[in-house]
Amino acid sequence: MAATAVSQYYLSFHSIPEDGGTWRRRRRRTGSSVCCTPPVPSIPSSSPPPVVGPELSLSFGAHVIPHPKKVEKGGEDAFFISSYNGGVVAVADGVSGWAEQNVNPALFSRELMSKASSLVEDEEVSYNPRTLIQKAHAATSSVGSATVIIAMLEKNGTLKIASVGDCGLRVIRKGQVVFSTSPEEHYFDCPYQLSSEAVGQTYLDATVSSVELVKGDTLVIGSDGLFDNVFDHEIVSAVGTTSDGVTNTGGKLDDITVIVGHAESS
Amino acid sequence: MAATAVSQYYLSFHSIPEDGGTWRRRRRRTGSSVCCTPPVPSIPSSSPPPVVGPELSLSFGAHVIPHPKKVEKGGEDAFFISSYNGGVVAVADGVSGWAEQNVNPALFSRELMSKASSLVEDEEVSYNPRTLIQKAHAATSSVGSATVIIAMLEKNGTLKIASVGDCGLRVIRKGQVVFSTSPEEHYFDCPYQLSSEAVGQTYLDATVSSVELVKGDTLVIGSDGLFDNVFDHEIVSAVGTTSDGVTNTGGKLDDITVIVGHAESS
Repeated sequence: MAATAVSQYYLSFHSIPEDGGTWRRRRRRTGSSVCCTPPVPSIPSSSPPPVVGPELSLSFGAHVIPHPKKVEKGGEDAFFISSYNGGVVAVADGVSGWAEQNVNPALFSRELMSKASSLVEDEEVSYNPRTLIQKAHAATSSVGSATVIIAMLEKNGTLKIASVGDCGLRVIRKGQVVFSTSPEEHYFDCPYQLSSEAVGQTYLDATVSSVELVKGDTLVIGSDGLFDNVFDHEIVSAVGTTSDGVTNTGGKLDDITVIVGHAESS
Repeated sequence: MAATAVSQYYLSFHSIPEDGGTWRRRRRRTGSSVCCTPPVPSIPSSSPPPVVGPELSLSFGAHVIPHPKKVEKGGEDAFFISSYNGGVVAVADGVSGWAEQNVNPALFSRELMSKASSLVEDEEVSYNPRTLIQKAHAATSSVGSATVIIAMLEKNGTLKIASVGDCGLRVIRKGQVVFSTSPEEHYFDCPYQLSSEAVGQTYLDATVSSVELVKGDTLVIGSDGLFDNVFDHEIVSAVGTTSDGVTNTGGKLDDITVIVGHAESS
C-alpha cells in the first residue's frame, strides 16, 4: 500500500470565519430559483466512470494529531489500514471521559483496532464491516469505550461501511463530496460508542451503508476531531491542493485522525 | 400502499434564523473537548435492530408544492411510488431554464418518471436503480432535462439509491439523520442533470449508494426545493411532530416535492 504524506489535510484547519456556516446557508438564500439554461456550453460532456471497470484498490496516507494535552501519551485515537482485498481502513476514537475514572481512554480504542486488524481475513467476518465490529468488540477486554468506523472495499468498487458514533467518511469525486456518513449521537458531543460496559452500544447500532467508488475517487476517513474542525468544502479544497494549508488558529481541541485513500486500478 | 398526510413536512419551512447555520456550526465551537463520562446512566441500553429481522416494506405519503408562479401548470417536479418488492420511490426535478427556450420544463421530468415507473419490474433493470435511470432516460423523448433520484428497497432492508443531481434522500432513525445523500452539481445551483441534449449527464454519472434500513426508519425523499429550504434538524423535528409546523416566510421559491416513507414489517 502506498503511503502518501497528507500534511495538507491536517494543516488545513482554519479559524471559524465571520460568516460561519456559509457553506450550508448559501443554499438557503431568499429569491427566485436560479438554474443554468440548458444546453450548457460551458459544461463539458461528462467523462463517465465505467460501470464495469478495472478492479479497484485503495492507497492510503494517514496522520494522527494528538490533543495538545495528550501528546506525550499519543492521544486516544487509533486506526489501522489493511491491503486485504480492495483495502480496509478503520478509525476508533477513545472516549476521553474515562480519564476521570483513572482509566486511560486510549487502551480500549487501541485494542479494538488491534483486534479488528487481526480479524480482517476471518472467515466468519466474511468481509462484512458490521461483523468485524462485532467480533473485534467481543475480543476487546480493555475497560473503556470508543466510537468506530470501518470501511472495506470490494475490488468491484463497492465500499462497505459500518459506523458506531461520530467518526466519519467522505468520498470526493470531481471536486465535490458525493458521499458522506452521518454521525450517531445520544446528545450533543456524546456519540454512540462501543463500550466495555453494558450501557454502551453494539454492532447492532452501527449505521451500515455502501457506495460505489470509481477510479480516481478520494476517500477521507477520520475521527470527529477532523469533521468538527474542518468543513467539507475545506476538505475538498485540501484534497485538491498541494499547499500546506493554513495552521489552525481556532476550532475544537481534540485528537484528530485523518486517513486519505485514493481509488486506483488494481 | 398506505398514504399518510404529510402536511407537517411541507409546512415546516422557517425563515432563516439570525444565527444561520447553527446546526453545522455548533460542531465547530472553540474550547476543549467535552464528552459524556461513561458509564452513562442517563443513556438507556439501546434497543438494537435485528440483523436478520422481518421483511421490510415502505409505506409512503407524498406532497408537491409548485413554485408560486407555476401553480397553474402544476410545477416541474414529478415523482412516482411503487409497491413492487420492498417499495420504490423516485423524484425528478425539471430544469426550469428550458422555459427560456419555450420548452415546458415539466415535460421531461414527467415523461422520465412515467417511463421509470413502467420499467420498475423490467427484467433487464433487475431492480437496479442506476439501470432504471439508464432505461427510463433512453425511453424519454421529450426535450428538456431533469435531476433524478430513485430508491429501491429490497425486502431484506437494503435500500439501493441512484441519484443524478441535487434531489435528496434522508434516513431518520431514533430522532437523527443516520444517512444522507449528497448533491451533484457543476457549480452553484446548476446540478448534474439527465438531458435530451448530449451535453447532459447520464446514468453513468449517478452516485450509487445503499443503506441498511431497520423497522421504524423514516425516509424523506425530495427535490432540492425541500433541502434548500429546510435544514436536516428541521426535517427531523417535523418527522417527530404531529403539529402543522410553521408557514414559510422566507427561503428560496421553487417547486417542492417531498415524499415520506416509513419502513414497516411486510
